[in-house]
Amino acid sequence: MKFVRHAVCIDCGQTVAARPEITTCPACGGLLDIIYDYEAIKRSLSRRVLAARPEPTMWRYAELLPVETETAARMAAEGLRVGNSPLYPAPNLAAETGIRTLYIKDDGQNPTASLKDRASAMAVAKALEAGRNVIACSSTGNAASSLAGNCARAGMETYIFVPERAPKGKVAQLLIFGAHVFSVQGDYGATFRLSAAAIKKYGWYNRNAAINPYLLEGKKTAALEIAEQLDWQVPDYLALSVGDGCTIAGVWKGFCDLYHAGLIDRLPRLLSVQAAGCCPIHNALRSGGPLQPMAENTLADSIAVGMPRNPKKALRAIRESNGVAVEVSDDEILAAMRLLGKSCGVFAEPAAATALAGLVRARKENRIPAACSVVCLISGNGLKDVANGIRAAGEPRLVAPSPEEFTL
Amino acid sequence: MKFVRHAVCIDCGQTVAARPEITTCPACGGLLDIIYDYEAIKRSLSRRVLAARPEPTMWRYAELLPVETETAARMAAEGLRVGNSPLYPAPNLAAETGIRTLYIKDDGQNPTASLKDRASAMAVAKALEAGRNVIACSSTGNAASSLAGNCARAGMETYIFVPERAPKGKVAQLLIFGAHVFSVQGDYGATFRLSAAAIKKYGWYNRNAAINPYLLEGKKTAALEIAEQLDWQVPDYLALSVGDGCTIAGVWKGFCDLYHAGLIDRLPRLLSVQAAGCCPIHNALRSGGPLQPMAENTLADSIAVGMPRNPKKALRAIRESNGVAVEVSDDEILAAMRLLGKSCGVFAEPAAATALAGLVRARKENRIPAACSVVCLISGNGLKDVANGIRAAGEPRLVAPSPEEFTL
Repeated sequence: MKFVRHAVCIDCGQTVAARPEITTCPACGGLLDIIYDYEAIKRSLSRRVLAARPEPTMWRYAELLPVETETAARMAAEGLRVGNSPLYPAPNLAAETGIRTLYIKDDGQNPTASLKDRASAMAVAKALEAGRNVIACSSTGNAASSLAGNCARAGMETYIFVPERAPKGKVAQLLIFGAHVFSVQGDYGATFRLSAAAIKKYGWYNRNAAINPYLLEGKKTAALEIAEQLDWQVPDYLALSVGDGCTIAGVWKGFCDLYHAGLIDRLPRLLSVQAAGCCPIHNALRSGGPLQPMAENTLADSIAVGMPRNPKKALRAIRESNGVAVEVSDDEILAAMRLLGKSCGVFAEPAAATALAGLVRARKENRIPAACSVVCLISGNGLKDVANGIRAAGEPRLVAPSPEEFTL
Repeated sequence: MKFVRHAVCIDCGQTVAARPEITTCPACGGLLDIIYDYEAIKRSLSRRVLAARPEPTMWRYAELLPVETETAARMAAEGLRVGNSPLYPAPNLAAETGIRTLYIKDDGQNPTASLKDRASAMAVAKALEAGRNVIACSSTGNAASSLAGNCARAGMETYIFVPERAPKGKVAQLLIFGAHVFSVQGDYGATFRLSAAAIKKYGWYNRNAAINPYLLEGKKTAALEIAEQLDWQVPDYLALSVGDGCTIAGVWKGFCDLYHAGLIDRLPRLLSVQAAGCCPIHNALRSGGPLQPMAENTLADSIAVGMPRNPKKALRAIRESNGVAVEVSDDEILAAMRLLGKSCGVFAEPAAATALAGLVRARKENRIPAACSVVCLISGNGLKDVANGIRAAGEPRLVAPSPEEFTL
C-alpha cells in the first residue's frame, strides 16, 4: 500500500502498522484511523488524472484507499460493480424545501441496494490481502446482505448470525447469496456475542464496521464521488442519517482526505439526522458526556441503534465539521419518502429518507440558510422495506370497471 | 431525428412518418418497425466514437435511437440514470452450467430495478417531443413502476390502472412515485379496457410496449450495451425470458441495428425461455399457426402472459436468429435464483432467473453446445418479489445463543 503510512489510535495516538487484520489499538483498545502520505498522493493524483480514468467503481480512487494496487484492480475486474451511484440535481425538491441548490446521491443503486456495499467490498478486498476466504458478521440488515452478495461474487464463504426475529425478506436475501445463516434464539446482544465467539473459534475474517478501520475507508468513497461528480465544488452541507455513526464518520473522512490531498479547497458542514425515537449520538453531542443507551423507537430500522458500538468517530466528525444535528419523527420520515419519490423518482428506505426529513426540518427551524447548496445522501433502496413503503404511500383509488362511469 | 427514415408496417409494408404519437399502421393496424438510415449512421458513429463518449446511460447511443439530439441530451442530463447496467463475467457459473464462456447482464440494476426503465425512459422522451406531460398505462408490474419513477423524475404526471388483486408492494412503489393509481374492481382485461377508454377520453400519452414502436427501441439499448461491453465480440447465444415478447423483440432489433450500422459483423442466436406453465409464444412457434391463449400457471409473474398482445415481433426474432426455445418449470426457476445468487451475488426476480434456468436446461438437453459463449439477460431485481425469494432460499439454521454449544 504505497500511499498508506500507518494507522493511528484516536484515543492514545499510538501508531500501528496497517496490516490487513488490524482492528483496534493494541495499547489501549481505542479505534484506529488510517493515515495516508498525502504529499505522495498529491504527486500521483490530480483532478485531471481522475477525469481521464475510465474505471466506473469505487476502485477508481485506488490511491486514496487502503489496498494494494493489484487488489483494487482485481476488485474492479472481478467484484460486483460497487459505487459510482448517481448524483441527481433536484431543482424541484430544492424549491419545495426552500434550498438554493440540492442534489440527491442515490446510493440505493448499489448492487445489493445500499451504501453498505462500499464497506463490504472493502472487507472482501482486505480478506483477499489477508489470505482469508471466509468472512463473518452479525447483523440483520444491509451490512449482512451486502457482505453476502459481495462474497458470493468473490467466491468467498460467509457466516452470518441473525437474531430469530430478523425479517424474513432479509434472511431470504442472505440465503439466496449462499451465506451460511444462523438464526440465533435470542436478541441482538446474544447474537453478537455468539458471532464473536464463533469468529474467534474458527478464525474467520471479521466484518465489523464499528471496529475494523478499513470498512470506514470503503464508506468514504461516497464522499469522493460526490466531490468528483460536483466537479470538485464542495457543497455547503451534506445531509445524512445516523445510526451507528460509521457512515457519517466515513463520509467525513473522505472529505478530509480529499482536502489533505489537495483535491478540494474547503470542507462541507455535516447535517446529521437521527430519528427522534433513537438519537443517542445527538444526546451525547449536546451533553458532552459519554453516550447513554436509548430505546429503539423508530420504524427506520437501519438507524435504530440504541447503543452504537462506537460513537466517537461520529461525534468527532459532527464537531469538526461545525455540523448541525436534527431529529425527526417517524411521520416526518414517511412524508420524506413520499416527497423524494414524487419529486425525484427515487424510492428510499425509511432510514435513507431520514436524511431528507432532517433537511426539511432544518430549513423549517432555520438551522441552515436558504442560500446554500446541499447534498442529501440516500443510503438504501425502498424495495428493502416494502412494508413501510406501503405505510408511507397510502391507498389507491378504487374504481368500478366501467368506462362510462369513470371520471378523474 | 436525423437518422430515422420512417416506420414500416411489419404486415403490409406501408411506410409511415415517424411522428412522436404513432402507434400502429394506419392502413392495416399492423405493428410498426422504426427504420434508420444505416449508411448515415455509419458515417457518424463508429466503435471509436463511442469509446470516446463519456455519457453513462442508454442515451449514449443517440444516433441509434428514435429521438432528437436535444431530447437525448435532456434525458441524459435530467432523467433517471437508465442503462449501462453491469455485464459480469461468470466463470464459476459457466463451469457449473457446462458452458465455455458466460456473462450475466444485470438489468435489475436500473433505477426502478428492472429492464423496463429503458422503455419507460423512451416513453418520457417521446412524450416530451409530443408536447405531452401526462402518460398512462395499465399494468401491475415493472412497466408501471418504471413509468411512475421515470415520470416523477421528469416532472410528468402518470395515470396507472391496476387490477384490484395487484400486489400491495408494487402499488406502494407507484404511489411513492406520486402516480395517480386506480385500483379497478375486475381482472386485467377489464383494467386494460378501462385504461384504453380513459386514455382516449383524456388524451394522455399511451405507454403500451406491445403497440408503441418506440418503447421497443428503448429496450434494444440492452443489446447495444452488451455488444459494446464485450468490445463488439458478439456472443453465440443470448438467453432471455419471454412473456409478452417485447423484450426479446427489442433485444433482437438492437443487434440487427448494430449489424446494419456496421458496428458488429455477426448476429447472436436467441435462446428464448418461457415458463412451462405459460408458453403460448413457443407453442405458436412450433405449430406455425396463430397464437392460442394459455393459462398463466407460473410463479414468475412478470412473464405470466397467457395472451400476449402482440407476439409477431417476438416470433420473427426467434425465427430470424435461428433461435432455440426451451420451457422450464417453477422449480427450475427457483433453483436458478439460488444458483445465480450463490455463484454471482446477483439476486434476480423469478422471471429474470428464468433465463438462466433455460440455459441450464438447454445444456442438459444438449440443445446448445458446450463450446459457446452466452450472455444471460437478468431483467429484474429479486427485491421486487421477496415472497418468492423466500420460497427459493429455504430456511436458516436455528441455533441456541450459547457459544459453548455452537459448532458448524
